[in-house]
Amino acid sequence: MEKIKPRTLSGFMELLPAPQMQMERFLKTLRQTYSLYGFTPLDTPAIESAEVLLAKGGGETEKQIYRFQKGDSDLALRFDLTVPLAKYVAIHAGELAFPFRRFQIGKVYRGERAQRGRFREFYQADIDIIGDGKLDIVNEAEIPSVIYKTFTALGLERFQIRVNNRKILNGFYAMLGLSEKSGDIMRTVDKLDKIGAEKVRVILQEDVGLSAPEADEILRFMAISGTNSEVLTALDAYRGRNEVFDQGLSELSTVTKYLGAFGVPEDHFAVDLTIARGLDYYTGTVYETTLLDHPELGSICSGGRYDNLAEYYTDRALPGVGISIGVTRLFYVLDEQGMFNKDLPTAPADVLLLPMTEDISGAAAAATAFRDSGIRAQLYCEQKKFKAKMQYADKLGIPFVAFLGEDELAAGKISVKDLATGEQQLLTMEEAKAFLAEKIEQRNRGKLLAE
Amino acid sequence: MEKIKPRTLSGFMELLPAPQMQMERFLKTLRQTYSLYGFTPLDTPAIESAEVLLAKGGGETEKQIYRFQKGDSDLALRFDLTVPLAKYVAIHAGELAFPFRRFQIGKVYRGERAQRGRFREFYQADIDIIGDGKLDIVNEAEIPSVIYKTFTALGLERFQIRVNNRKILNGFYAMLGLSEKSGDIMRTVDKLDKIGAEKVRVILQEDVGLSAPEADEILRFMAISGTNSEVLTALDAYRGRNEVFDQGLSELSTVTKYLGAFGVPEDHFAVDLTIARGLDYYTGTVYETTLLDHPELGSICSGGRYDNLAEYYTDRALPGVGISIGVTRLFYVLDEQGMFNKDLPTAPADVLLLPMTEDISGAAAAATAFRDSGIRAQLYCEQKKFKAKMQYADKLGIPFVAFLGEDELAAGKISVKDLATGEQQLLTMEEAKAFLAEKIEQRNRGKLLAE
Repeated sequence: MEKIKPRTLSGFMELLPAPQMQMERFLKTLRQTYSLYGFTPLDTPAIESAEVLLAKGGGETEKQIYRFQKGDSDLALRFDLTVPLAKYVAIHAGELAFPFRRFQIGKVYRGERAQRGRFREFYQADIDIIGDGKLDIVNEAEIPSVIYKTFTALGLERFQIRVNNRKILNGFYAMLGLSEKSGDIMRTVDKLDKIGAEKVRVILQEDVGLSAPEADEILRFMAISGTNSEVLTALDAYRGRNEVFDQGLSELSTVTKYLGAFGVPEDHFAVDLTIARGLDYYTGTVYETTLLDHPELGSICSGGRYDNLAEYYTDRALPGVGISIGVTRLFYVLDEQGMFNKDLPTAPADVLLLPMTEDISGAAAAATAFRDSGIRAQLYCEQKKFKAKMQYADKLGIPFVAFLGEDELAAGKISVKDLATGEQQLLTMEEAKAFLAEKIEQRNRGKLLAE
Repeated sequence: MEKIKPRTLSGFMELLPAPQMQMERFLKTLRQTYSLYGFTPLDTPAIESAEVLLAKGGGETEKQIYRFQKGDSDLALRFDLTVPLAKYVAIHAGELAFPFRRFQIGKVYRGERAQRGRFREFYQADIDIIGDGKLDIVNEAEIPSVIYKTFTALGLERFQIRVNNRKILNGFYAMLGLSEKSGDIMRTVDKLDKIGAEKVRVILQEDVGLSAPEADEILRFMAISGTNSEVLTALDAYRGRNEVFDQGLSELSTVTKYLGAFGVPEDHFAVDLTIARGLDYYTGTVYETTLLDHPELGSICSGGRYDNLAEYYTDRALPGVGISIGVTRLFYVLDEQGMFNKDLPTAPADVLLLPMTEDISGAAAAATAFRDSGIRAQLYCEQKKFKAKMQYADKLGIPFVAFLGEDELAAGKISVKDLATGEQQLLTMEEAKAFLAEKIEQRNRGKLLAE
């Protein structure tokens, strides 16, 4: 038969079994953490009507869309989880209770130019809280808590949640009479980290067309830093000059005030006036999250407050706040940085059973008993030499091998060997189950990531 | 702004939050059960090169494929999880340990004619065991155990795993000198359940062209029934006339012999000679699973033994055995039959916290403490009347509400109300955590399905 060369498309992640086990743990940790905060899981189709998916239209995104005809339907693959959420809430608003808190972890598709660490199919893990008409500021204050708990549950400690409020920025530019130039200014200020204050000043004056005092004023404002209370105190000096600014500062104060109660340590949080998160979508608090030892990765979890989730579908005002983790890329870079905890098991089974008799009933019964008590057991019955069987366990990283020969069967016992220590014990099934359960629990105790 | 009417494509399942919670439990149960048997999770892309995906080519499937161009790439969405597995194993054979046991639960796409209960995007949940060159018969004997444990873990009891062996059928038709007509015969015999023996006899004679004695012989064979040992004894009478038949009978005897050791009760298993599962793919044991009270649903879990997983990609012989559950359709019909256990919680949270003071620090700290101890807690801070807050908990099915007012804060306690009984208690946080943990554990004790 003529063969087709098997291949996986470039830009599509396909993992070997051991790293896939790590990915499963990663996703499970996200699901568990999001659930603790009362977010309900959703699952929407990967394919939507192109008209619905591209209601917003335009922009860089549209070029990246996987769009195709099937019969006379114009279809497209989702490129994020926000548009499907907007569609879902617009359709089902009458059946939902607001605030509607949902999480969704699913694959999205963007036909970007393939490059290292960039994926065309990737998991996003989103949470959003949607209000009906209104949404209390406490929801914005709670988000840093979700971010903190998510990353610490994964095993990260050295990260910082950076927060700003778009009303502060908009109010500040309004004070200076620069509202119309605020888009250009924000795009420029966004480069502070990369190119430094002096180059930003040059661009602000030469390209954006600001006066020297205006550029100075902006750079002075952006340079405000220190502890959260120092930053808030510095911002207080601007109060009273613009209503939007004052509202933003009041919101930022509320978000900062409740951090401790929400379990976020002060050193994991920083007010950062340089953060804007794009120009048109976010309207209040905005979030970024950076790894202290890997600032080059940029933000690993971002989001913010928006006023109209579903304005392309409905007149109903649906304000919300949400964050998103680009899981596939994050997984890729954490792996590249060698940050996965190598002590956590990635084997498909906890114990490999090797029957030593022709009739394998005893081994099958033992496997069944292990499984019934929650131990992942694999029966190995291939006609291979003993050494090959042990190599199989070794290659897969299965930590224990159990033997059932004539002697064990006669004694109603089972031999259990710890492949790490070489220690072998003859145990009753009850003893073996208790022994393995304890060992497995120990081995699974660590977190997925280690710094 | 002009609005686009939001809609979800026909044939695409999109659930409201409560049924989605049931779906999550369903998928989690499958993942857990498959894992107990030492299957490792895989995740392959939903998009593949059309050339690779359609290597086998032809047939009904090809018309249903979602196929499209992106740039100069000819792409297609996967229509099952078997072809991606074949591709994966062909690519990675050198890095895998054989037998390679994997499970995959993922969405597949078929642009079928839309009809009630049929989906164009649906989850399949597959397990396969792939051997390198050879694969021991014990693997085929173990599969009914996975099926049994999976469905009992979901809460089903009244189902039967029906098993046959293709070698028995092929050998039997060879005995009668009817090998060349075996395809037509099997297609006809497959209708026994639906149209009965007399109509099958007519078709066998008039359309397939068998003689009356041949048709009689086939119907007599297909009518063999009884306990497993009665069926095996009846089949024994045919032994010695065809080598393939004898091998199939020996395999079927082995599969039947180990059922008990693998924990499958005799009454959940039946040898059924009418099962063939298609014409060209399966070569040994074949499986179907039917709900005793809903035979009209057909098989809810099917599969079998095959000789060449990846023959379109590689010369390497990769025999295997696997089964697949069409999750989305099964979920749909079980729901239609009202078989979901209504006692299991579908709420997004276990407890709703209502702060009764302007400063919500105490309630935020309580929510954080609950979450740290694994209790799903939602904080509700919207400016609503008390009654509206209670209705919110009620609408979502959140079983407990916790209040934190001045009195509670002063006493260092929290009021916890059970919405089912109306009972309210003033508890310390430690008491509240223990109380809620126990209640939640009780509420989650049941299985997902109830007959």
